[in-house]
Amino acid sequence: MHTFFKVKTAEEIFDSLRDIEPLGSKSVPIRSAFNRVLARDIESSEDLPGFQRSTVDGYALAARDTFGASEGLPALFSIVGEVRMGEIPPFRLKRGECALIPTGGMLPEEADAVAMVEYSQRLEEGVVEITRPVSPLENVIRPDDDVKRGQVILQKGILLRPQDLGILACLGISHVEVFERPKAAIISTGEEIVDISQKPRAGQVRDINSYTLGGLCIKEGVEPIYLGIAGDTFEDLKSHVERAISQADAVLLSGGSSIGVKDLTLDAFLSFEGVELVAHGVSISPGKPTIFVKKGNKTLWGLPGHPVSAMIIFDVFLRYLFNKLKGLSDPDEEGSHFMEAELDRNVESVSGREDYIRVKLSRREGQVLVTPILGKSGLISTMVEADGIVRIDMNTEGLYRGDKVKVRLF
Amino acid sequence: MHTFFKVKTAEEIFDSLRDIEPLGSKSVPIRSAFNRVLARDIESSEDLPGFQRSTVDGYALAARDTFGASEGLPALFSIVGEVRMGEIPPFRLKRGECALIPTGGMLPEEADAVAMVEYSQRLEEGVVEITRPVSPLENVIRPDDDVKRGQVILQKGILLRPQDLGILACLGISHVEVFERPKAAIISTGEEIVDISQKPRAGQVRDINSYTLGGLCIKEGVEPIYLGIAGDTFEDLKSHVERAISQADAVLLSGGSSIGVKDLTLDAFLSFEGVELVAHGVSISPGKPTIFVKKGNKTLWGLPGHPVSAMIIFDVFLRYLFNKLKGLSDPDEEGSHFMEAELDRNVESVSGREDYIRVKLSRREGQVLVTPILGKSGLISTMVEADGIVRIDMNTEGLYRGDKVKVRLF
Repeated sequence: MHTFFKVKTAEEIFDSLRDIEPLGSKSVPIRSAFNRVLARDIESSEDLPGFQRSTVDGYALAARDTFGASEGLPALFSIVGEVRMGEIPPFRLKRGECALIPTGGMLPEEADAVAMVEYSQRLEEGVVEITRPVSPLENVIRPDDDVKRGQVILQKGILLRPQDLGILACLGISHVEVFERPKAAIISTGEEIVDISQKPRAGQVRDINSYTLGGLCIKEGVEPIYLGIAGDTFEDLKSHVERAISQADAVLLSGGSSIGVKDLTLDAFLSFEGVELVAHGVSISPGKPTIFVKKGNKTLWGLPGHPVSAMIIFDVFLRYLFNKLKGLSDPDEEGSHFMEAELDRNVESVSGREDYIRVKLSRREGQVLVTPILGKSGLISTMVEADGIVRIDMNTEGLYRGDKVKVRLF
Repeated sequence: MHTFFKVKTAEEIFDSLRDIEPLGSKSVPIRSAFNRVLARDIESSEDLPGFQRSTVDGYALAARDTFGASEGLPALFSIVGEVRMGEIPPFRLKRGECALIPTGGMLPEEADAVAMVEYSQRLEEGVVEITRPVSPLENVIRPDDDVKRGQVILQKGILLRPQDLGILACLGISHVEVFERPKAAIISTGEEIVDISQKPRAGQVRDINSYTLGGLCIKEGVEPIYLGIAGDTFEDLKSHVERAISQADAVLLSGGSSIGVKDLTLDAFLSFEGVELVAHGVSISPGKPTIFVKKGNKTLWGLPGHPVSAMIIFDVFLRYLFNKLKGLSDPDEEGSHFMEAELDRNVESVSGREDYIRVKLSRREGQVLVTPILGKSGLISTMVEADGIVRIDMNTEGLYRGDKVKVRLF
């Protein structure tokens, strides 16, 4: 009987993925850069906002002229002008003078603070009483308060968020260098698999994995290339894999749950030059029947045919791989798709392998409870029912009701 | 002096958004349906997998024929055939007969279980010993184990995940009805605002909000329509808003931090037919200078000019609005972008309004700590530095060091 002859632990697979290099980079308009990975540090070439701005509607003045002012003994100012938005004030202040200024307006020369309208009293034309002292720089943004010239404002390897696009805009950077999106070629195989447009006969099932894996790719910012269904002959597998390698950074060939087809997949992978077999079998469950072959910076994956197993292998290893290819500075980054909650029943697990269990979340008395979903990894419905997965460590024999567990939302 | 004359609480704004109707729907290929909102319940028209399948490589047989089998006293079977993937077995079993079956293969008639290869011993050609009893249905998926005919497998109003696409594929559903993506027209205004392609003179700043708001739209699955910068005259504002209303479901006009321009924005909004002023001022900080006008199912927003304030108003109200337009069954859904952690210093807040503070996360001794970022809402850099925001309730006067707070990751 055939068995898996090079079973690796999850840690060993990660070790082998650590030297994967990021893809090349290209320049894109910042409007299209949301959620792309920055390929270079961004240094500011100017101070921002670059001039002294008011943060309120009020009177620009010299703070020292207001010292000691109160409701009972207000400081008197003559209004010598009005600052207009977007313009350099065409006047400068002398002692006892002030100017009307709108929020965002530029302070005139000799002004170092703004008194809010709320603490003023207009007397006759051109004269105002200020009823509270203001400190120097009060209600003022200084020329380099937002960004200092020469400062690294964004670091290579981050995912660009809306506010990061904002600061790029603020600096007049209309295009930005980002890493290329990885491409993944998706192939399903197995004589029992038919395209979703076909009505399966008894004994046949429709291709699920192309769609679940494609969806996972899109979720991770990876471009899926759908190569359809390969027949389970060496020649057909090989020609599909050849096309896949020429078009993509990673080949995701799923299916062939039976050992015979797995062997053909392996033969097809190993028929290419410069390949290295990393794993034939992985000690995680579900997901054991996984083949992982490296070909330089490209990787070839023989994923399990069971939809749940294939999704879990994607989440555990391929997400990490794609983070490396995308150039993320922290490829282990778990993102925000995690939460901690309490298990509501015991779960058994086999020591010596990592177990991934599907779970459902519910709320009872304000507390979130985690319920394991039982069911075979061939059943996609168990994944539809699930809200997340929980990892059980290799050295743990199970989890107990009441244990706090980390749920990866899925 | 002008002030806000119709200040509303956050709750009042939500009340007014509750009757927003979802947009129309359209059919899309499931390959393009990831993260779209399902517009109709999906009911299964068939049992899945539709036949009895093996979950292992082994021998299909009648379980009762193995009862009592052991290593010492194995049950003997004659092998009458081999099940081929994707085919109906062309034989049926009699007592004491079995058939080789691969994982995923269809059980022959009269078989109700599969004995794993690991617990068998091949004797001469055509005879095998089974050394462990199997129970009926062991290692078998029944015809309706995955999906039962008539079952509602996906409900209207959910965001489609990869596994949901998988179950649609499994049912042969290649196209699915989803709600249209909302469109948001984005306009910036203010005489001090220049396009990012221009070098600002002293007193001017580049347009930030078009990019932060555009990024937020994309993040939320909303299509941004960039309408550029409107001059702050009534005519120019009105003609921009007119174009915006004709093209989009929501108008996001930001800027005009000074009260004079806010008045013009309001006048421009109210110059259209069938409009209703909901709020002129919102009691949250930052974000108070917000105008909200309804025009049937469309909404017009005069957002603050300060980039941080505009982003917070988006996150608090516009995300909810877009969830309603997208047809999400749970528009309050906070998603997974939250975490609970401990505040590492005291924060003051004014009672009577909701405060949103920017925070940075750090890890100390395995614990996540939340540090407030101080800085004016005119500074986009404070948002770049931030990992999230924390809401302080209207009736709370502040938070204390050590308090557990909910951080919305941003």
